[in-house]
Amino acid sequence: MLSGILKFFLPKDKIFYTLFENASANLESLAEKLVLVVHESDFNKRGEIIKQMEELEHQNDVLTHTIFVELGKNFITPFDREDIHSLATALDDIADYIYASAKKINFYKINPDDQGVQKMAVVIKDAVLAVNSAVIELRNLKNTQKIIDCVVRINSAENQGDDIFDLSIDRLFEHESDIKLLIKKRELYQSLEIVTDKCEDAGNVIESIVVKYA
Amino acid sequence: MLSGILKFFLPKDKIFYTLFENASANLESLAEKLVLVVHESDFNKRGEIIKQMEELEHQNDVLTHTIFVELGKNFITPFDREDIHSLATALDDIADYIYASAKKINFYKINPDDQGVQKMAVVIKDAVLAVNSAVIELRNLKNTQKIIDCVVRINSAENQGDDIFDLSIDRLFEHESDIKLLIKKRELYQSLEIVTDKCEDAGNVIESIVVKYA
Amino acid sequence: MLSGILKFFLPKDKIFYTLFENASANLESLAEKLVLVVHESDFNKRGEIIKQMEELEHQNDVLTHTIFVELGKNFITPFDREDIHSLATALDDIADYIYASAKKINFYKINPDDQGVQKMAVVIKDAVLAVNSAVIELRNLKNTQKIIDCVVRINSAENQGDDIFDLSIDRLFEHESDIKLLIKKRELYQSLEIVTDKCEDAGNVIESIVVKYA
Repeated sequence: MLSGILKFFLPKDKIFYTLFENASANLESLAEKLVLVVHESDFNKRGEIIKQMEELEHQNDVLTHTIFVELGKNFITPFDREDIHSLATALDDIADYIYASAKKINFYKINPDDQGVQKMAVVIKDAVLAVNSAVIELRNLKNTQKIIDCVVRINSAENQGDDIFDLSIDRLFEHESDIKLLIKKRELYQSLEIVTDKCEDAGNVIESIVVKYA
Repeated sequence: MLSGILKFFLPKDKIFYTLFENASANLESLAEKLVLVVHESDFNKRGEIIKQMEELEHQNDVLTHTIFVELGKNFITPFDREDIHSLATALDDIADYIYASAKKINFYKINPDDQGVQKMAVVIKDAVLAVNSAVIELRNLKNTQKIIDCVVRINSAENQGDDIFDLSIDRLFEHESDIKLLIKKRELYQSLEIVTDKCEDAGNVIESIVVKYA
Repeated sequence: MLSGILKFFLPKDKIFYTLFENASANLESLAEKLVLVVHESDFNKRGEIIKQMEELEHQNDVLTHTIFVELGKNFITPFDREDIHSLATALDDIADYIYASAKKINFYKINPDDQGVQKMAVVIKDAVLAVNSAVIELRNLKNTQKIIDCVVRINSAENQGDDIFDLSIDRLFEHESDIKLLIKKRELYQSLEIVTDKCEDAGNVIESIVVKYA
């Protein structure tokens, strides 16, 4: 760890902005493809989109891994080390759960022509767009108000996600008599709802960075 | 991060004690209201208590957020930064799962006149009282034995929680023929059991603080 | 925290290697006993092995606790503090989920004569053997290639675990008409699958240590 001190005068901390921007741009593509998946009735076409999502999710794994490695190598970082770690983890979790949700649809052969699932995908896309806008603003931290607006949008999307989730689960227990399908759909709703939670986690980290550094 | 060094001679680390005490006092109110909820047969009256719990849970969110912000601003902290982060997270998780458990009862229209649920709520109250007592003692760390006694009480409550959980789940699979209700109740038991796990997490952090600083 | 600086010239950081080695050796015993459990048809004999596993899991709790306490006491550590924390957590999680999986088999009276469960246990043993080999190599970090080979083995086991999990869940929903048994077995498969995820977490931390220090 002491060798890190030698790097004191050679901060290469700009790398983190680029890595975060790449990861959150990737999330946008993932969220757009999720919306496509839940509106695609053809099983095979859905499968092709999900394959593209697998590749995007893998790219995010690599980016997250690189952020952790850079965190280990850099003594000076643009924000608190804890915040870099938490933000990288949150972005990685968003990618994981978007991909996992899409995968479940084909795995369980769930008909995605389901208002709850489709509305949730749109809310997820909203939240992810706001996460990406906020991440882009981190580089200069000048436009604080814009970042705060993004965090508000993320939190609002998370609230909408909760409401859609509650309504969907309620409807499921009320009307679905096929218990196996109920179990499968409940798992899908839970996975989608976790995506919005993870967006909120990302928003919370970004907000605390703004509070400390802006 | 370097600007933090300038604050070196101005430690304002007492703020953490106050924030932790407010959060854990809030947990006591939440746990007391959980016991009320599971003994209240009127759906609407339960709803009113749950609304009060939502407000308390929100207050804990704000307190946790403030602890993280202060952690970012303060170079000197009364304990290890990791311990402050872990304790704040554990207290926040306790609040989240107590509130989530109460909410599920009305959401799923579960009759709370259930020995497992009622016993679990009492065990949770025991654990939370012990967490609060331990947090109060953190301020001076003089009465180490009292803190250790609290940790023992928390762990004992967690063990009781496990036993009640196992028995309840066993009984549920044995006797409940309505699978939808089985799924709902299992989710409630799991949520309640997580509360005692999170109390144990808080106890573990507190114990490690005592070992290092007392 | 400043008192830690005084220990600057007295690094006792070798303790971490020993603690990690003890924990990962324990995991090997746990994984071996899990394989025994899933091939043992006698309920009582399984119960005896599970009791031995409880003791091993408890020993790992104590080791993890000791690692955290040492982390608090030592200013100088052989790797990044975050990596020590993450590795200790991952090893502890592996122990928890192996034991929890074994316990579920007797608790739910699941017949372990199930290809999915038995194959998963073998894959878990593979992953844990690779984790243990990698942990042993951490002490000198000379044989980097050997550690990387272990990480590859862990990731390959995790992939196999995913495939067995998907196949088992698919088969379960296709063929199991007893919904209560379906819920129980799904929970067991999920618990087993988490073990391989936690092995991957351990592998990721070990890999990042190698990248930084070798």
